[in-house]
Amino acid sequence: MKHLISMRDIDKDDILRILDEAERMEDILNSKKVSKILEGKILATIFYEPSTRTRLSFETAMKRLGGEVIGFGDVENTSVVKGESLIDTIRVVSNYCDVIVLRHPSEGAARLASEYSSVPIINAGDGSNQHPTQTLLDLYTINREIGRIDNIKVAFVGDLKYGRTVHSLSYALALFEGVELHFISPKELKMPREIIDDLRGKVKIYESDKIGELDVDVVYVTRIQKERFPDLNEYQKVKGSYKIKKEHIENKDLIVMHPLPRVDEIDYGVDKLPQAKYFKQSFYGIPVRMAILKILIEEFERT
Amino acid sequence: MKHLISMRDIDKDDILRILDEAERMEDILNSKKVSKILEGKILATIFYEPSTRTRLSFETAMKRLGGEVIGFGDVENTSVVKGESLIDTIRVVSNYCDVIVLRHPSEGAARLASEYSSVPIINAGDGSNQHPTQTLLDLYTINREIGRIDNIKVAFVGDLKYGRTVHSLSYALALFEGVELHFISPKELKMPREIIDDLRGKVKIYESDKIGELDVDVVYVTRIQKERFPDLNEYQKVKGSYKIKKEHIENKDLIVMHPLPRVDEIDYGVDKLPQAKYFKQSFYGIPVRMAILKILIEEFERT
Amino acid sequence: MKHLISMRDIDKDDILRILDEAERMEDILNSKKVSKILEGKILATIFYEPSTRTRLSFETAMKRLGGEVIGFGDVENTSVVKGESLIDTIRVVSNYCDVIVLRHPSEGAARLASEYSSVPIINAGDGSNQHPTQTLLDLYTINREIGRIDNIKVAFVGDLKYGRTVHSLSYALALFEGVELHFISPKELKMPREIIDDLRGKVKIYESDKIGELDVDVVYVTRIQKERFPDLNEYQKVKGSYKIKKEHIENKDLIVMHPLPRVDEIDYGVDKLPQAKYFKQSFYGIPVRMAILKILIEEFERT
Repeated sequence: MKHLISMRDIDKDDILRILDEAERMEDILNSKKVSKILEGKILATIFYEPSTRTRLSFETAMKRLGGEVIGFGDVENTSVVKGESLIDTIRVVSNYCDVIVLRHPSEGAARLASEYSSVPIINAGDGSNQHPTQTLLDLYTINREIGRIDNIKVAFVGDLKYGRTVHSLSYALALFEGVELHFISPKELKMPREIIDDLRGKVKIYESDKIGELDVDVVYVTRIQKERFPDLNEYQKVKGSYKIKKEHIENKDLIVMHPLPRVDEIDYGVDKLPQAKYFKQSFYGIPVRMAILKILIEEFERT
Repeated sequence: MKHLISMRDIDKDDILRILDEAERMEDILNSKKVSKILEGKILATIFYEPSTRTRLSFETAMKRLGGEVIGFGDVENTSVVKGESLIDTIRVVSNYCDVIVLRHPSEGAARLASEYSSVPIINAGDGSNQHPTQTLLDLYTINREIGRIDNIKVAFVGDLKYGRTVHSLSYALALFEGVELHFISPKELKMPREIIDDLRGKVKIYESDKIGELDVDVVYVTRIQKERFPDLNEYQKVKGSYKIKKEHIENKDLIVMHPLPRVDEIDYGVDKLPQAKYFKQSFYGIPVRMAILKILIEEFERT
Repeated sequence: MKHLISMRDIDKDDILRILDEAERMEDILNSKKVSKILEGKILATIFYEPSTRTRLSFETAMKRLGGEVIGFGDVENTSVVKGESLIDTIRVVSNYCDVIVLRHPSEGAARLASEYSSVPIINAGDGSNQHPTQTLLDLYTINREIGRIDNIKVAFVGDLKYGRTVHSLSYALALFEGVELHFISPKELKMPREIIDDLRGKVKIYESDKIGELDVDVVYVTRIQKERFPDLNEYQKVKGSYKIKKEHIENKDLIVMHPLPRVDEIDYGVDKLPQAKYFKQSFYGIPVRMAILKILIEEFERT
C-alpha cells in the first residue's frame, strides 16, 4: 500500500490489517496517553470541495498521533483560482508534507494525483466514486459492534442509487463469507443493476421497496435527497416511508448505522436506543484514520 | 464547573479561582518556557459566526499550553449547510476532542450544546446573550491593573443597551463589595431598565448622557453602531459626543478599557497614554483562556 | 534584522547568512529527525489577500521546526470587516504570537505594521511591492542548483513590467559580482526604465523581445496575464511567443525557474527534463523560510 485511492486496490488481508491496527489505535485513544508515533510528520488536507466532518476527523487522527496538519478547506482562496492544475498543486504540496488527504469533485482525481505525488495520497472522496476510509470505518464499526463481518446480514435503506458509501461498502462486504444484503429503497433510487450483477454469487441479495421486518444485524441508513426527484410530491411521499423510527428497531438485536450528516431519515427518538450506533461510528473514524495514516507513512519511510 | 456557559452559573469563588489560575498562566507566558500542561489534548473551535479575535485568542491559549486545535471558522463549508442540527454536530465533534469552544448566533445554543456534548463546552458568544470569557478577562484586567475589584468605580461609555459585554460585566462586578457603576450613553442606548433594577441594592448606580468628569478607576468604552439609529443624523450627532479623547483622561488616575475591535470611539491620540489598557486587556485574554481550558479539562479528566 | 520587510533593508552579508542557515535547515529536513528548535513558539499568518502557497510554505517551515501556527487566510470573517485598522489588528495579534507573516494588498503595509508590532514581521507581499522571502528562495535555488550566484547569467522571460519577483530578484542579483541579466518580454511588458537605470553599471544588461538562443545559466519564467492587455488578440499573439518549450532548453546547461503557479507559460513537456527546477524551487521555500523564522525569533529573544 503506497496510496489509498480505492477499495478495489486492497484485498481482504489489507482490510483486516487496517482494522487490526485501528484496534491498537483505539487503545491509544482510550489510554489518554500522549502518542508521538507521527511526531514531526505533516499531513496536508487538500479539499477542493468542503467536507468538515472528514477533514476534522483526519486532522484529529493526525494530531492524536503527535503529527501536524496544514491545508486548505475550499478552493476559493487558492492558486487554483489562478488556473493552476491539480497536478502542479500536488507536486508542490507533496514537497511540503509527509502524506496528503485529497477531496476533489472529479472522478479519478485521486488516482491522477497519486501518479505525481512524492508522498502517499489518501482519497477522501473523488466525486461520486470512492471514499475508502468511510468504507473502512463502516467495516470497523460492524466488527467492533457485532464482533464479526463474516456471516453478517446488512439492510441498506434509502438512496441506494447515488449513495457512494452504500456501493463501496457492498463491494467490501462481498469479500467476506456468508454475507446477506437487503436493499430497501424507493423504486426511483434502487441499487444500480450493474452493481447487483457484480455482487451476485458472492453475497445473498434481497430487494424491497418497504422497510418491513428488518431481520438483520445492521441497518445502514442513507439520506434521500430532494434534488434526486423531478417531482417534489413524489419526494415527500417517499421520504416518510424510509425514515427509521423507534418501532422499526426496538427489541431487535441489530445496530443502526448512518454515514452522517443525518437530516431526518432517522427519527430523533432512535438516538437514545442502544441500537443507535451512528455517533459511535463517526468516532470510529478516528482510530481507523489513525491506522491508515500510520501504515502509509511508515511504509513510505521504509521505501 | 463542567462547562462555562454563562456568568450566572459561577459565583465569586469560581471567579477568584479562575483569576488566580490565570496569574499562574501569565507567569508561564512570561517565563517563555515551553508548557506541556495540555499536551495531547485537542480543542475544537466551532464558530457558526465569524470572530477572528476570540478564535485566535483561544487557539493561542491552547497552543501555549502544548495542546492542539481543530475546528471551523464559518458555516459556509460545513455539514450545517446540508441541514445537520447543532445537536448532531456537537455529538460528532465532541467525540473528536477534549473541549469545545462554541460561538453561535442563537441565544441558548451553548446551553443546548452542553446537554449533548461528551466534553466541556465553553460559550464564546450565543447571540446577544453571554460571552463569559470576555467578562472574566475584563475582571482580570481590572484586578491586574488596579490591584483590586472590590470598591472599584467603573464608567461604561457608549452603547449600553445592546452591549453584551457591558451587561455581563455589570452583573459580575455586582458580586464584589462597594462597587460604583456610572452608565454614560445617549438616551437611545441607555442601560436597560431591568438590568438597572437587578443591580440596584448591590452596587451604586449613576446615569448620565454626558461623559463629564470621569471620577472613576475604569472607563470601559464600547462601540456605538450606526445600525442602532433609525436616523443617520442622530447617529452622527451622538457618535462624536461619546468618543474618548486625550483631554478626558490625561492626568487622571484611571485606566481605559475596550473589548475591541475599536472603530473610532477612542481617539488614536489616547493609545500612547499610560491609561490606555485595551491592548493589554486583549493580551490578558490569553492567560484567562489558558486558565479556563486547564480547569475544565482537568476537572473533566477527574470525573 | 528585527523584521524582514524589504530586500532593500538587507545587504549581501545578510543574504549569505540566510542562505547559509537555510542549508542547515535543509539538512534537518533531509535527516527526517524531529526538530524542536522553535518548540513553544507561535507564528501568526495574517493574510489580507489569499495566497495558499506562501501560507502553506510558512506553516510547513514553522511546523518542521516544532513551532505552532495561528492565523487567518482571508479578511471576510475577521474584525477587519467591522472596520478595525491594520494597526489595531497588528497590536492585538502581536500580543498573541512570536512572529507574524503578513500579506496585504497595500504597498507599505508591512513597514507600517512593523512600527506597531511587538514581535518580528515578515512581509509576504504588500501589493506589487516586496515579497522578500520569494527573492531569497530564488537566490537559494540558484546557489544550490548552479553552485554560485556570482558570475551568473539569468534570462527573465514573460511579464517584466508588473512582475514583482523579477524586479526584486534583479536588484538582489546586482549585489553579486559579474552578473548578466537578459530581459526577454513583449514590448508592452518590458522591464521598467527606472529599474534598468538602477541596475546599469552593476550588472550587464541585454534586452530582447525574442526568446532566442538562451545562452544563460538560469531561465526565470513568469506568467503573462491576460488582464495586462487592452486587446485580447494582442495577448493571444504574444502569449505563445514567450512559452518555454522543450526545444528551447534541451541539451543546454541551464535551469528553468518559475515562482508558480504556472498556467501555460512552460509547456508540460518541459517538466520531465533535468533542467526543470521550478518544483524544486518551491521546495527550497521551506528551508529558506525555516532559516528566516529561526533567525528573526532568535534575534528577537536576544533583545
